[in-house]
Amino acid sequence: MTFPPEATLADAGEFGLISELVGLFPQGEHVLIGPGDDAAVLRVRTGHVVVSTDLMVEGRHFRRDWASAEDVGHRAAAQNLSDLNAMGGRAHSLTVGLAAPADLPARWALEFAAGFAAECALVGASVVGGDVTRADEVVIAVTVIGACLQAPVVRSGAEAGDVLALTGRQGWAAGGLAVLGRGFRSPRVLVEAYRRPEPPYDAGPIAAAAGATSMIDVSDGLLGDAAHLAEASGVAIDVHRAAFEIPEPLVAVGAATGADPLSFILGGGDDHALLATFPDVASVPDGWSVIGDVLEGAPGVTVDGGPYDGPTGWTHF
Amino acid sequence: MTFPPEATLADAGEFGLISELVGLFPQGEHVLIGPGDDAAVLRVRTGHVVVSTDLMVEGRHFRRDWASAEDVGHRAAAQNLSDLNAMGGRAHSLTVGLAAPADLPARWALEFAAGFAAECALVGASVVGGDVTRADEVVIAVTVIGACLQAPVVRSGAEAGDVLALTGRQGWAAGGLAVLGRGFRSPRVLVEAYRRPEPPYDAGPIAAAAGATSMIDVSDGLLGDAAHLAEASGVAIDVHRAAFEIPEPLVAVGAATGADPLSFILGGGDDHALLATFPDVASVPDGWSVIGDVLEGAPGVTVDGGPYDGPTGWTHF
Repeated sequence: MTFPPEATLADAGEFGLISELVGLFPQGEHVLIGPGDDAAVLRVRTGHVVVSTDLMVEGRHFRRDWASAEDVGHRAAAQNLSDLNAMGGRAHSLTVGLAAPADLPARWALEFAAGFAAECALVGASVVGGDVTRADEVVIAVTVIGACLQAPVVRSGAEAGDVLALTGRQGWAAGGLAVLGRGFRSPRVLVEAYRRPEPPYDAGPIAAAAGATSMIDVSDGLLGDAAHLAEASGVAIDVHRAAFEIPEPLVAVGAATGADPLSFILGGGDDHALLATFPDVASVPDGWSVIGDVLEGAPGVTVDGGPYDGPTGWTHF
Repeated sequence: MTFPPEATLADAGEFGLISELVGLFPQGEHVLIGPGDDAAVLRVRTGHVVVSTDLMVEGRHFRRDWASAEDVGHRAAAQNLSDLNAMGGRAHSLTVGLAAPADLPARWALEFAAGFAAECALVGASVVGGDVTRADEVVIAVTVIGACLQAPVVRSGAEAGDVLALTGRQGWAAGGLAVLGRGFRSPRVLVEAYRRPEPPYDAGPIAAAAGATSMIDVSDGLLGDAAHLAEASGVAIDVHRAAFEIPEPLVAVGAATGADPLSFILGGGDDHALLATFPDVASVPDGWSVIGDVLEGAPGVTVDGGPYDGPTGWTHF
């Protein structure tokens, strides 16, 4: 390392930092030219690429006192890997941009990168490029590139008569965030779920192969993302309260905070669960729960046939 | 439009803004799924993609009082399109992330997007995805994806005996920045060069076809980027002062500011000129100027055989 352990980004310098960061990113065999040139070059055998991009801003999407640098790295990668999962795809390459104050500890950037690389390794993806620059607050910009083994599953394919199904933890991260927001650190399992989501990375491609008619990852809240499916597909969606078993830690947080524990599940958006529609119950893969129906009618979402008055998602402005 | 002309981003809301932005981005025929789903899907016929990413931060890489939103859009796109140019490639797709204060006029975001789209159209590239979110300052994150018609030109291929050559305006933007920094608006041609660089987008692929042995776009300053070539290739590079004809507007700015006008050319980095090495003078394409030699020796850059003591580039921290 060309800088001491307690160095800031300003001490480390752009090129010193980049040189350390690049060492944290192993390159897959599809990477013909990796980080360090004007651009990376990737072999593409599938005839297509699937691409998505996301921003994370300190204070808005994460807090450095609520999650370690490594946790934030995991989350930043997971959020983007999940977008490809929601198309029925799998990531092979990512780029990451880090804008940060000059007095940010260089160690934070390195631990962030280590967490980011570890999350990418879960799906065998490589970090092929990036950028670092100075800013007043930490902003993380990620772009993910991958492929689908079969036709991508879009948001607009749901039809009346389909069933709505969910896979992955849902509401746990929102519960963890509520706990942290009140200055507590337990139930620990929820706090950990917030810090490091565990998106069901295999489930997207399996759902695509099983004939999912539409799919989205839950990032704006379960009902909010169901509404995106409804609007894109021109259908109505009804979600059934009784379909959800409330996990014990959410019951505990509900009791402690006075919130309906179901509101974490219906409104939460940081677990990166997958929400999809299938032609019938028989085609829903193992590991998914049927939680609603697709109906004819004005595009929108109801809960047990009526409007839902709890928090339903996330507003970016 | 779902919001009034004087709306802020907060008034417009994330989805209102995105819906307007998407309308500004025409999609090429290689775009199988464009903006609006969890990810875009692009047809790739070349067997590979070339990828690069860059961040721009308000106050550091641009100022809203020194350039219009449309100018900033042009620059943000140009900076990234230029990275592919420097590989001998051409962009086909870009994503753009915009983090911005809630009170930013929505009009600024729309004009930025229009400039961005117009610059992309110069090379026939499509804006296929993006993200918007709130932040204390404006941060723009761009990822560019494209292809090379022949082997990518990397930084590490220069050999002793090669010649160093340059194409595109160089030093004009630095001159414009010096003018703006002193509160002036003329020479207007330099200010315009700073606001809207004109990278030589055809020159990269032509240089690759002509046998360029190494290439980089000038973004850290001419001597700084020559040093990147020297270090990556393990060679010494000597730049010849006499090779540069000083354009009249730079002479004028030098006279007004007391700066050596050559310092804008040797140290400037916002024009996105291309710097490349070729095996001999005969292989240098039309439109390029030979400005130096590649020599054996310790990796580094000299000017007329000696050290250069002017400003040589850009430090990110």
